[in-house]
Amino acid sequence: MVKSSIRRIAICTGGGDAPGLNAVIRSVVISAANRGWECYGIHDGFNGILFPERYADDGVIRLTRAHVRNIGHLGGTILGSTNKGNPLHFPIRMPDGSMREIDRSDEILQYFAKKEIDALVSVGGDGSLTIADALHKKGLRVVGVPKTIDNDLDKTMTTFGFDTAVAFATECIDRLHSTAQSHQRVMVVEVMGRYAGWIALHCGISGNAHSILIPEIPFDLDKVVDQIMARDAEGRMYSVVVVAEGAAPKDGHQEIVAEAEIGHAERLGGVGDRIARAIAERSGKDTRVVVLGHLLRGGSPTAFDRIAAMRFGAAAVRGLDKGLSGVMVSLAFPNVEYIALSEVAGRMKAVPLDSDTVQTARDLGICLGD
Amino acid sequence: MVKSSIRRIAICTGGGDAPGLNAVIRSVVISAANRGWECYGIHDGFNGILFPERYADDGVIRLTRAHVRNIGHLGGTILGSTNKGNPLHFPIRMPDGSMREIDRSDEILQYFAKKEIDALVSVGGDGSLTIADALHKKGLRVVGVPKTIDNDLDKTMTTFGFDTAVAFATECIDRLHSTAQSHQRVMVVEVMGRYAGWIALHCGISGNAHSILIPEIPFDLDKVVDQIMARDAEGRMYSVVVVAEGAAPKDGHQEIVAEAEIGHAERLGGVGDRIARAIAERSGKDTRVVVLGHLLRGGSPTAFDRIAAMRFGAAAVRGLDKGLSGVMVSLAFPNVEYIALSEVAGRMKAVPLDSDTVQTARDLGICLGD
Amino acid sequence: MVKSSIRRIAICTGGGDAPGLNAVIRSVVISAANRGWECYGIHDGFNGILFPERYADDGVIRLTRAHVRNIGHLGGTILGSTNKGNPLHFPIRMPDGSMREIDRSDEILQYFAKKEIDALVSVGGDGSLTIADALHKKGLRVVGVPKTIDNDLDKTMTTFGFDTAVAFATECIDRLHSTAQSHQRVMVVEVMGRYAGWIALHCGISGNAHSILIPEIPFDLDKVVDQIMARDAEGRMYSVVVVAEGAAPKDGHQEIVAEAEIGHAERLGGVGDRIARAIAERSGKDTRVVVLGHLLRGGSPTAFDRIAAMRFGAAAVRGLDKGLSGVMVSLAFPNVEYIALSEVAGRMKAVPLDSDTVQTARDLGICLGD
Amino acid sequence: MVKSSIRRIAICTGGGDAPGLNAVIRSVVISAANRGWECYGIHDGFNGILFPERYADDGVIRLTRAHVRNIGHLGGTILGSTNKGNPLHFPIRMPDGSMREIDRSDEILQYFAKKEIDALVSVGGDGSLTIADALHKKGLRVVGVPKTIDNDLDKTMTTFGFDTAVAFATECIDRLHSTAQSHQRVMVVEVMGRYAGWIALHCGISGNAHSILIPEIPFDLDKVVDQIMARDAEGRMYSVVVVAEGAAPKDGHQEIVAEAEIGHAERLGGVGDRIARAIAERSGKDTRVVVLGHLLRGGSPTAFDRIAAMRFGAAAVRGLDKGLSGVMVSLAFPNVEYIALSEVAGRMKAVPLDSDTVQTARDLGICLGD
Repeated sequence: MVKSSIRRIAICTGGGDAPGLNAVIRSVVISAANRGWECYGIHDGFNGILFPERYADDGVIRLTRAHVRNIGHLGGTILGSTNKGNPLHFPIRMPDGSMREIDRSDEILQYFAKKEIDALVSVGGDGSLTIADALHKKGLRVVGVPKTIDNDLDKTMTTFGFDTAVAFATECIDRLHSTAQSHQRVMVVEVMGRYAGWIALHCGISGNAHSILIPEIPFDLDKVVDQIMARDAEGRMYSVVVVAEGAAPKDGHQEIVAEAEIGHAERLGGVGDRIARAIAERSGKDTRVVVLGHLLRGGSPTAFDRIAAMRFGAAAVRGLDKGLSGVMVSLAFPNVEYIALSEVAGRMKAVPLDSDTVQTARDLGICLGD
Repeated sequence: MVKSSIRRIAICTGGGDAPGLNAVIRSVVISAANRGWECYGIHDGFNGILFPERYADDGVIRLTRAHVRNIGHLGGTILGSTNKGNPLHFPIRMPDGSMREIDRSDEILQYFAKKEIDALVSVGGDGSLTIADALHKKGLRVVGVPKTIDNDLDKTMTTFGFDTAVAFATECIDRLHSTAQSHQRVMVVEVMGRYAGWIALHCGISGNAHSILIPEIPFDLDKVVDQIMARDAEGRMYSVVVVAEGAAPKDGHQEIVAEAEIGHAERLGGVGDRIARAIAERSGKDTRVVVLGHLLRGGSPTAFDRIAAMRFGAAAVRGLDKGLSGVMVSLAFPNVEYIALSEVAGRMKAVPLDSDTVQTARDLGICLGD
Repeated sequence: MVKSSIRRIAICTGGGDAPGLNAVIRSVVISAANRGWECYGIHDGFNGILFPERYADDGVIRLTRAHVRNIGHLGGTILGSTNKGNPLHFPIRMPDGSMREIDRSDEILQYFAKKEIDALVSVGGDGSLTIADALHKKGLRVVGVPKTIDNDLDKTMTTFGFDTAVAFATECIDRLHSTAQSHQRVMVVEVMGRYAGWIALHCGISGNAHSILIPEIPFDLDKVVDQIMARDAEGRMYSVVVVAEGAAPKDGHQEIVAEAEIGHAERLGGVGDRIARAIAERSGKDTRVVVLGHLLRGGSPTAFDRIAAMRFGAAAVRGLDKGLSGVMVSLAFPNVEYIALSEVAGRMKAVPLDSDTVQTARDLGICLGD
Repeated sequence: MVKSSIRRIAICTGGGDAPGLNAVIRSVVISAANRGWECYGIHDGFNGILFPERYADDGVIRLTRAHVRNIGHLGGTILGSTNKGNPLHFPIRMPDGSMREIDRSDEILQYFAKKEIDALVSVGGDGSLTIADALHKKGLRVVGVPKTIDNDLDKTMTTFGFDTAVAFATECIDRLHSTAQSHQRVMVVEVMGRYAGWIALHCGISGNAHSILIPEIPFDLDKVVDQIMARDAEGRMYSVVVVAEGAAPKDGHQEIVAEAEIGHAERLGGVGDRIARAIAERSGKDTRVVVLGHLLRGGSPTAFDRIAAMRFGAAAVRGLDKGLSGVMVSLAFPNVEYIALSEVAGRMKAVPLDSDTVQTARDLGICLGD
């Protein structure tokens, strides 16, 4: 681990956006500038390098303090995140019309060499961090910053974006409570979470949902309906059901959510719709669905996420300054730590069923569908 | 107009709920209590009177100061609003299975007489105010309070609930901007407004939408697509399109929203979905839809709506105290006024096409689909 | 009224800032650009013209669409508002050390002539609008846009900024209720309003204050203390008192707020402090003061204020396009109107004591100190 | 550790209130009810037991599900927190007028015995937890729940209330940025934190403050002024300085904040005022102070704090159910743990100067006064 003298670094953001990306960028740019380093921003993942002709500024922009002024509280990412393909397995069309995947990572390494950029901060989810690890193994100095609003990245307590998603989902559920109660309705609220139920579990608890369905716990919809009817019998004529987009029924109930695997929060007929229709049929109650989807991805980050993002950005720069490479910054307590990218890639953090948070839901009488 | 000595009044809330209903109730109860009047709350429109057996408290509750403490900022209505039918045209099933409508308004009058309740404050939309007028004509002392989050009631500048709906829709659009931009998407946002486009127009302007489609202006979707492509050509690769649920195409475009008349914000395949699919096809751009629906109906009222609601409630009580009946309180400038219910019922306030607000949208370059 | 062909306009913002200023600027720039006009922004009131040497860009900046992108929801003003003096009565130091006022308005007219700028949109309060009227009388084409978070400008229903101030003050009062109740305290909340009590009255009603003291109603503090003690006797052990910074006692109570005339919300020992100390002494209750001051001036405008600001900006440009000058845009119902500046200048809109809003406060049992 | 069969528990909340207290109460009551236990709420710390005559309900109330419905999102505590004295050292006035402290803890134990209440959940800060430990040592079964908005309790990652305080302080700082910039002012923002600077450090980073002064780092005000002037020289004519109420100068600078030790956020002339005056004098810049104080204590808890509070409440009940006593629930990762109260009492968690959060502030160029 040799501490090398860095003069220029680059930063890119890939995958779905998450509130806090701009705070990471701001923190990286200022932390670098305060060390006398130049910082370059690559547009749209690595697209700025792979397709420079598509950009008025040739795909990579010098980021100064002025570029990152007053962006820390903005949603989205000033660098964009619409990458067109994984550079390690880039899809190309062959002369005969068939598709093939090629490895374009050497183009990225060449770009860094040509421009004399010494290191990369790669902000992204599991896919982006896998690419970052590959680039590191080919000799590029790389530090990764974990990004997922779903909170499903392993080896870090949490990441930026998740708290904002939970906070806004909670606000939405709060709003739905009052109208559900006035109209004696069942409200089904579908939130993001294809593989892990963190958002649903957390906003369901904070929003006082009556049922929470998550991918980790295959559900029996009758349990949910039983609870709705039990509440009715007590004169509590409304219920709120929070559903992660990846929630799935136990065997024998596939018909309800048969297409859930391909269901996206934003698509017509997602799991929320199907569950709402099934509840309406079985309970006879007026049942409505609200799909929060994209609303959870945009917006100004919470203070928690801004701080996490800025700690991550500063720690990434400090890591490079110390000569680290092939690592990801990770939120531990009380300090940020560095974890080898190879330990992170491809690992998904599901909600542990024995966690106290799941137990809290049970203690509060929330139906988890099991 | 004889000033009679009131000892007891009742209040009911009917129709879809709107943020501010509880502030009206609170204001009526306290204003009445400060005059030494008792106040009774009827559950679920007039259901509390028509179906007392369904309620543990016989359907009508004495409301004291304690009942309305700390409810002014709550969404929904503590009285409920799930009425099962218009008492003037109440649907009943005949022995032969056919349905018939009967007039049950006399039961309401009898209830007031029996319980020696001197007057009614009826909070509701066009339907509730029509019933209120009928009860007034039959001899009940009634003052109406206008309620509609859609802002489509005539003879009042605005009502409570609308500002809250616009404010939250604006917050949602703000969130969608950042993620639309990061991902270079078109975001179609469907908001309430089956007959009038007030919410769409206002949140579209405040949220910097690029297109706004309202029922008052039949749209040509090609205009929307042209604008999206023009923005792309300038490097502005994303667009936000706000659609009122009642927006409809010009002749020749019916296929897009053919079922819009029966489309509800909450239903699968509403106008927003259809427009999103059509935009995706014609523009080739990644297009997503977000249906705000119920989110706009619940929630804590804005300060503006709380004040309007409390002014309405206090003015309703003052109106009764002055001996008024058959009138609706109305927001004028600078003071609340009283308008004959007969002038209000059945009239819908559409967005005037020559209003400066519509002209503002045009001046800002927002596409209105025409 | 000759419709002249405008090619260039300028805009300036003066006086204390108000949420919505940037939305006005955005609306003016885009409305002008859509007519093919150029728009110039003058820094810091007229300072940009009077002191060009202080600015890197010579004090006046060409504003394009790019400059006003994504600024509509930002607080403050991108043009600044720190003017150093009224150009009509500009203070200068004479060689003998004495101060004199000179009229520098001709320099402004000369600047417009030299740069071939055809008209001015002047956004400001009473002072700025008086200057605008003077420039109009000297031959400059001017349209004014009213700005005051205090809502004390006459001849317009309201202006942008006021709704945001009331909304945030309400949120703060909501927060103080819960802690006041837990600790059985009296909370005195001082808000802006040196000459008019609009903010205090509105946030006091929406925030369920128990007393509201405004400049229009000289107060007897014993009434406030009596109410606090009466609440205590009923077991309601806490109270919230909202005070406008310009509130003043009736004769015989000067000692409480003797310096109130010179008191600013932000200064040490403002009226809120003095009232809190007097209440603590007379009631024996733990009494705290919170001064909201600057918090009400900054921040993102509410949807209501964004729309009002954009309607104002667009209407100002339309007014110029129609050949109007010497007028102010004014919010009427349902449309924006144009009022002669000469009718506006020097007139202050106090809270009318017979308004239904004041009566609502009384009906709700709120103590107004009289 | 014998698992005993609990039938009745009590809960009390003491000390300054914190957003989330009601969520803890709700979680304890429901978790207990779902085990078939009764739950009793003691008013105002232990006052309900020590002074039953002051309460209409004899100072202790049976808490059912109905009592805790819809309270999870409310600020404050439905039990009150205005305790009149530490029961271990209760101040009493002797016949000769002198004050003495007596131990009244036996009265509490007797109350539990007489009412057959088997255990206590004590929610509070360092003081309350010390009392809880003493009661445990006298034989009462007690589980503590840590509460401090200042985040200065040791042995837990964080507690509820802190995130809400940081979030609202950030929102306030966001608002002040825009008005500071428009008026070219220095804004000094005083936040809570008498002994630890957690709130100031976190809201300062998330709110993009230019200087942050905390108790852990004695400050040299000239460093702050230097930075303000350096920003001015770069054309950044405004600055935001966040100050914890317990911040204190290095030797030789006492005059600035000489009375800071006795200064409370809510008091006239706190540390914020003094720093603002000193900055104004030294920099010549228009400098204003805003004291957030009580605003940070009230209000609806963030989603993060609601979840933490509900996890704590449920874990406290589970702990009792397992037979634990003399422990505090503690937020660890990923689960809540139980820490001996004896390890917690009297220990304060200061901001570690080598933490990555402090380093982040430095990397971002924020002046910490050293």
